[in-house]
Amino acid sequence: MNVHVTPEEPNVELPLAEAKKRVEAAAGSIPTGPRPGRRKVYEPGVLWPDIRVPFAEIAVHPSANEPPVTVYDPSGPYTDPDASIDIGRGLPEVVSLDWRVQRGDVELEPARRQVKPEDNGHAAGRHLAPAFDDSRRAVWRGVSGRPVTQLEYARLGVITPEMEYVSIRENLRREQTREWLRDGEDFGAEIPDFVTPEFVRDEVARGRAIIPANINHREVEPMAIGRNFLVKINANIGNSAVLSSVADEVDKLVWATRWGADTVMDLSTGRNIHNIRDWIIRNSPVPIGTVPIYQALEKVGGVAEDLSWEVFRDTLIEQAEQGVDYFTIHAGVRLPFVPLTAKRVTGIVSRGGSIMAKLCLSHHRESFLYEHFAEICEIMRAYDVSFSLGDGLRPGSIADANDEAQFAELRTLGELTRVAWDHGCQVMIEGPGHVPMHKIKANMDEQLKHCGEAPFYTLGPLTTDVAPGYDHITSAIGAAMIGWFGTAMLCYVTPKEHLGLPDRQDVKDGVITYKIAAHAADLAKGHPAARAWDDALSRARFEFRWEDQFNLSLDPETAREYHDETLPKEAHKTAHFCSMCGPKFCSMKISQDIRDAAQAEAGMAEMSDKFRAGGGEVLVKV
Amino acid sequence: MNVHVTPEEPNVELPLAEAKKRVEAAAGSIPTGPRPGRRKVYEPGVLWPDIRVPFAEIAVHPSANEPPVTVYDPSGPYTDPDASIDIGRGLPEVVSLDWRVQRGDVELEPARRQVKPEDNGHAAGRHLAPAFDDSRRAVWRGVSGRPVTQLEYARLGVITPEMEYVSIRENLRREQTREWLRDGEDFGAEIPDFVTPEFVRDEVARGRAIIPANINHREVEPMAIGRNFLVKINANIGNSAVLSSVADEVDKLVWATRWGADTVMDLSTGRNIHNIRDWIIRNSPVPIGTVPIYQALEKVGGVAEDLSWEVFRDTLIEQAEQGVDYFTIHAGVRLPFVPLTAKRVTGIVSRGGSIMAKLCLSHHRESFLYEHFAEICEIMRAYDVSFSLGDGLRPGSIADANDEAQFAELRTLGELTRVAWDHGCQVMIEGPGHVPMHKIKANMDEQLKHCGEAPFYTLGPLTTDVAPGYDHITSAIGAAMIGWFGTAMLCYVTPKEHLGLPDRQDVKDGVITYKIAAHAADLAKGHPAARAWDDALSRARFEFRWEDQFNLSLDPETAREYHDETLPKEAHKTAHFCSMCGPKFCSMKISQDIRDAAQAEAGMAEMSDKFRAGGGEVLVKV
Repeated sequence: MNVHVTPEEPNVELPLAEAKKRVEAAAGSIPTGPRPGRRKVYEPGVLWPDIRVPFAEIAVHPSANEPPVTVYDPSGPYTDPDASIDIGRGLPEVVSLDWRVQRGDVELEPARRQVKPEDNGHAAGRHLAPAFDDSRRAVWRGVSGRPVTQLEYARLGVITPEMEYVSIRENLRREQTREWLRDGEDFGAEIPDFVTPEFVRDEVARGRAIIPANINHREVEPMAIGRNFLVKINANIGNSAVLSSVADEVDKLVWATRWGADTVMDLSTGRNIHNIRDWIIRNSPVPIGTVPIYQALEKVGGVAEDLSWEVFRDTLIEQAEQGVDYFTIHAGVRLPFVPLTAKRVTGIVSRGGSIMAKLCLSHHRESFLYEHFAEICEIMRAYDVSFSLGDGLRPGSIADANDEAQFAELRTLGELTRVAWDHGCQVMIEGPGHVPMHKIKANMDEQLKHCGEAPFYTLGPLTTDVAPGYDHITSAIGAAMIGWFGTAMLCYVTPKEHLGLPDRQDVKDGVITYKIAAHAADLAKGHPAARAWDDALSRARFEFRWEDQFNLSLDPETAREYHDETLPKEAHKTAHFCSMCGPKFCSMKISQDIRDAAQAEAGMAEMSDKFRAGGGEVLVKV
Repeated sequence: MNVHVTPEEPNVELPLAEAKKRVEAAAGSIPTGPRPGRRKVYEPGVLWPDIRVPFAEIAVHPSANEPPVTVYDPSGPYTDPDASIDIGRGLPEVVSLDWRVQRGDVELEPARRQVKPEDNGHAAGRHLAPAFDDSRRAVWRGVSGRPVTQLEYARLGVITPEMEYVSIRENLRREQTREWLRDGEDFGAEIPDFVTPEFVRDEVARGRAIIPANINHREVEPMAIGRNFLVKINANIGNSAVLSSVADEVDKLVWATRWGADTVMDLSTGRNIHNIRDWIIRNSPVPIGTVPIYQALEKVGGVAEDLSWEVFRDTLIEQAEQGVDYFTIHAGVRLPFVPLTAKRVTGIVSRGGSIMAKLCLSHHRESFLYEHFAEICEIMRAYDVSFSLGDGLRPGSIADANDEAQFAELRTLGELTRVAWDHGCQVMIEGPGHVPMHKIKANMDEQLKHCGEAPFYTLGPLTTDVAPGYDHITSAIGAAMIGWFGTAMLCYVTPKEHLGLPDRQDVKDGVITYKIAAHAADLAKGHPAARAWDDALSRARFEFRWEDQFNLSLDPETAREYHDETLPKEAHKTAHFCSMCGPKFCSMKISQDIRDAAQAEAGMAEMSDKFRAGGGEVLVKV
């Protein structure tokens, strides 16, 4: 395993023994065990009784006389105290393939691809990252002429275990625990009161939702990305030529999902990416996305002009067999669009987009991704790898937002969506980028118009360029808004965006910030299970149930730490005041007095009615 | 000076000698000197040649061949290397009153109020915070029957020095440095291409903008709050019964304005608030706001039922003579509205609102703020203290947003606005609070409808309740949106909201986060001077001018620190790559190659035209 400390020192590498030690050390430091105040619970399936759908349950103090709050939980077995974690073995299978095998829909890969030296950038000997031992792992593929993707089953009317899993997961047990509430503006989405397996099937069949679950990623807990489901978030991890290691990446994966990442993209570049990816997928409860062109470029020594369809095709198969759940494919970066970027303030900022543009330009011919798109579909279909159609021409600055290059590519992505659907592939569409607030809605509207309601998956967007170091915030503003407008998944941005590689704290900050954006969007859309969480926390706040307030928060540890900085004593956790106003001056306390007084005084309500009947106003004497 | 470490230990107090030492220590630690990359520059007036309007100028590398970027600068003399700072003497006068004295509009206060023991909560001896020495300070008031407020001058057609100051300040020297750009959606605002003194006068005359500048705050650098000007932000400071000191508060004031706070509210409660406020005002280049009912309540021992008009009136005069620039007055919390809050999830969360509600309820009579509103106007007019009509019934949770209690109060604030205007007073209106995204616009719309376009000044709003510890972010989303919709000033929220008292880092995080929200709003409104800043930074980013990118950012120190974590060497500041992708893989670099290639290849543009003429699409072979 090589760890380039700086690009000037490419020969500072760790010996293999040291590398293995680091992976083992990582296994020990992977954060496991329940999060504070949360209890892992599972709901079984009805159609598929073997499935067990995980939730986190947050109980409140008995004095509140309230049911616990059930929240979505993508953290996998790592937060289950009954699970035993061994990253050297990976996670257990979640949903069985047996029924597909019995139907004759899938088969063991007849000619399993062998790892080639170029898969790890020709790293060898002490420079090679330790391989994950998956010698006993079965590699599956679809049988020709049989359904394999969730989309194909959905069209045939088959409710897969993944669909039922998702339906249970999206309901957050609201049928058992409380009334739900419809209050929001959903801009034409069709969010149901209650998510049935049939609803999931229909959404997938219509292409409005995807369930990214490669049949070779047996460890994945199925989840849906679609406008009529809870808004999801993605966290990016990945080593680069400059820094990073196997251990760090597995740790970041677990860390990101612990705080709430719904999918993780492995954006590794440099050497050893095959081996690192194996470790990531085998240990991931969430769908893993990649950008295969990055690895393909590594295989040709980083020279974009040398990229070929053959190298790319081989990379797709390599990653599909490993179990990658979705591929970013920049097939919308077409030769005629490249000159449209020449006058931009920031040109092409997508790595994949710039690679494809350079390739187009150097040979002066159309992108092979576009030309071989049908073949790409056939490969991805065979493993149910979902498309994430990449926005290689997304704007990298406020100045370039919503320009012709961006929208020409978006229209092409719509065209490619229909091709992929024709091949039975699941599809989502990537979106920008840097967009000022007044231009955000047009992105959603154009996407809906041209891409047949395929789920939208956006990076931010960042609403100003002037705050490097704070781009989790500049982008959370745009992410919350576009999530409200209908974007199904928000790709996080960390504080290090534009400046450096995110560390552990940056990953956490990015994930929490995006959980805020996604939940704010769910609330504004009127998702029927969203508000209960806010209300439970607000009641706890009003009633000075401090422990409940901490436990119900997105980040209990930080909430408690901030509270304790000012009022550290244990007694203050039950105090009917807080440090902001002090004991004499507490508005919440006064407000409770008012409530008591109002209840005592029956006449108050009548008086209020009288005033309101009179127009609610009395003239001011001046 | 007393520093209550916890409410259980009210007798842990600092002796006076120690207190004085701490203030002196604060004087030494106050952050002074220029911010990195910024040069303080001044523009003189034309109508009023004595005024000097400050800006921060950010030069870019000569290779860029670009003019420097001029940004708004509320940091006062503290960032001027030529200024000598002595917090024991306070800041110098900014705009002379001579012309008003000559007109006979203002006079020395004939019966200057003497400090009373209750002004400092009866703190005495070693418990009393050291007084600011203002024995030589003149205390002014308006002459009866003569104009004194900016609104009155504006109506008379008089362009005051403050108005010209504001006009120069708002233009950001764009007439000298570059073309400006109109691109935005302003929801009916009337932002001019160029701000003239006459435009400022007209906006003030119409009540659409205020210039909060008490004639006794000679140290203030005039600024405007209004929908057609740059969006402003406020930072709250203030000690409470639990913690804090004179030294900390002056430090926080300077610190907050250094990062960009346009006004500061002193929300102190507890003892010594008179003395602490003196130190703050005398050292503040930005308008200071207060909530006088807090001090009035202290004067009656914290018992809301004992509050009286006489105590409140005396407090208004005390603070007006000190130089407070705007008062939050919760006159919209009326007796008939109180029962409307009884069924809320979080009742009344405004401190001022709950005090007034309790008072109304306990005596079962109308609020004295409402009954004596005309007298309040007369007092405030005499010193040109602006109204900030408080939203005492703002929602404290998502569940309570936009309810009848909130909007009944808002309509009353509209009614009171007209009364205050009739008395010649400047007015802005406070707004919520906790509001989900889909209910934010209604707040702005109702405010515009009922409050005659008086400037709106909102706290956040927070778009979800579930993230204590991150409410700067939950609220920045709402703040950016409502700023876009037309809110003139955004009151910051720090990470400690709901949990504890903000420390220095929290104040900085809150200010930077709100600068982001305000600037994102300016961009979306199409403020003609906003985009130049983003474009300059994006060009620097695209051209790998790292130093320019740091200097142009809202927080250069943090941007540089984050960059240096991954690529610490000085050489990397000129490297044509960054740590995210490494040297081989840089999309910006590839994009520059494309630009060069596109320029070289004249035929490219034609080819693009051809493709576009053909509909910009080519069928995919499937």
